[in-house]
Amino acid sequence: MNFTQKLQNATAANNSLLCVGLDPDTSLLPEGISLEDFIRNIIDSTRDLVCAYKVNFAFFEALGESSFDYLKYTRQCIPAGVPVIADAKRADIGNTSKAYATAVFEQLGFDGITVNPYMGRDSLAPFFEYTDRGIFVLCRTSNPGSADFQNLEVVTREGRIPLYRAVAGKAAEWNRHGNIGLVMGATHPDELGIIRRQCPDMLLLIPGIGTQGGDIRMVVENGTNRQGEMALINSSRQIIHASRKADFAEKSRQAALSLREQINRFRRRD
Amino acid sequence: MNFTQKLQNATAANNSLLCVGLDPDTSLLPEGISLEDFIRNIIDSTRDLVCAYKVNFAFFEALGESSFDYLKYTRQCIPAGVPVIADAKRADIGNTSKAYATAVFEQLGFDGITVNPYMGRDSLAPFFEYTDRGIFVLCRTSNPGSADFQNLEVVTREGRIPLYRAVAGKAAEWNRHGNIGLVMGATHPDELGIIRRQCPDMLLLIPGIGTQGGDIRMVVENGTNRQGEMALINSSRQIIHASRKADFAEKSRQAALSLREQINRFRRRD
Repeated sequence: MNFTQKLQNATAANNSLLCVGLDPDTSLLPEGISLEDFIRNIIDSTRDLVCAYKVNFAFFEALGESSFDYLKYTRQCIPAGVPVIADAKRADIGNTSKAYATAVFEQLGFDGITVNPYMGRDSLAPFFEYTDRGIFVLCRTSNPGSADFQNLEVVTREGRIPLYRAVAGKAAEWNRHGNIGLVMGATHPDELGIIRRQCPDMLLLIPGIGTQGGDIRMVVENGTNRQGEMALINSSRQIIHASRKADFAEKSRQAALSLREQINRFRRRD
Repeated sequence: MNFTQKLQNATAANNSLLCVGLDPDTSLLPEGISLEDFIRNIIDSTRDLVCAYKVNFAFFEALGESSFDYLKYTRQCIPAGVPVIADAKRADIGNTSKAYATAVFEQLGFDGITVNPYMGRDSLAPFFEYTDRGIFVLCRTSNPGSADFQNLEVVTREGRIPLYRAVAGKAAEWNRHGNIGLVMGATHPDELGIIRRQCPDMLLLIPGIGTQGGDIRMVVENGTNRQGEMALINSSRQIIHASRKADFAEKSRQAALSLREQINRFRRRD
């Protein structure tokens, strides 16, 4: 089963476009709860409410020597039917990207990954070759500084367009197997709409609602396709660190339930 | 001591602009040699010939659960006077980049890192804050696909320039503490010259000679500053995998010696 099928199955089973970002900040763990217990509990209390999980590699790498074990443990806690994306933003020259793809897809068994387009097609090709995985190319990211380069006007055959649109155009051109998606920050809802019109059926991974401030209605209306799908709307801290007390799992479930419902309220349905 | 001082000391002590890339391909190890023995021997046989080492994180991450231990071991094999750069090409939203910086600089104790500019200034700021480390921003990379985006013409107040020059301009503007450098592929020697003129005294990390085909004379003449310095000319496979036999350490030393001399032949000297 390829990434999109797996995602659509989870979306249907859980009636959800919500992707929960597992970015555990160890300074925010509830007292007396180990990182393993925290991760397992968060997953167990949200697994029937999500279309996918996204695992932020940086937060694990910051743990040092146990980072790989924690990543593997997290992967194993996630039910087989729910796709999990490595938010690693990788890309390098060909043989190096191949090593990263091996680490993420084969050693760790993730279903998807985020990648950075700056180095061009050949730096991403080793990921694209995994046609059953989802490869999400950074397009317009949610952070304020994303305008520094992503919004520069570039000169193309079709006229002047912002760099992020040139990236979307190339990614669409490379998307021969339907396994390539884009990362579009929820903090730029107008640009999200522009990209959805430019790429009507491409997978969009949309971080930045919640703590970062993206508006849910705009994100759902502008980010989903005509069937109200093909968008993974991600929230991390707002869900996993909803409480630092003993009720953290219950509170994260409530936060996920609430966000799923807010999203569903604005979805088009066939 | 900051990165540039440490680099200049190593350059002077070893009369070298050669940076050796530690990108160990486990399928190319000499028979009966463990990865630890391989790394230690390569470093011991080249440590008096280099200005720096560059450690490619992907090749370590592909090793799976021991990756952190191998990175730490490699770091510890390198003499204290020789700077070592984490070739990790990281960048993410602020709190995530902070986690990566913690992992690379504090957990692992590296002197520098390569970072990707696509997400803009705030995605790099947590690295820049380590003013005693060297932060190398990807500019024009050595791979063929680098032209896909890096060479797109962008519209700026100074007129139309390729994206990589806009990146160099921003990096120079951000470089208040002298700790920011650029990654410029040896495979584009003319563009290397353009960037050296644009940024006369910035650190340039130059991969792509050797296996990737960059011309040494052009690279040295176009890449160094007026004093014949501030360039780290990197070779990886050509040196560390010079032989797969028992003489691998000796052969890697010969390859490094030869490359150091070829580079020095073209250096300007005060």
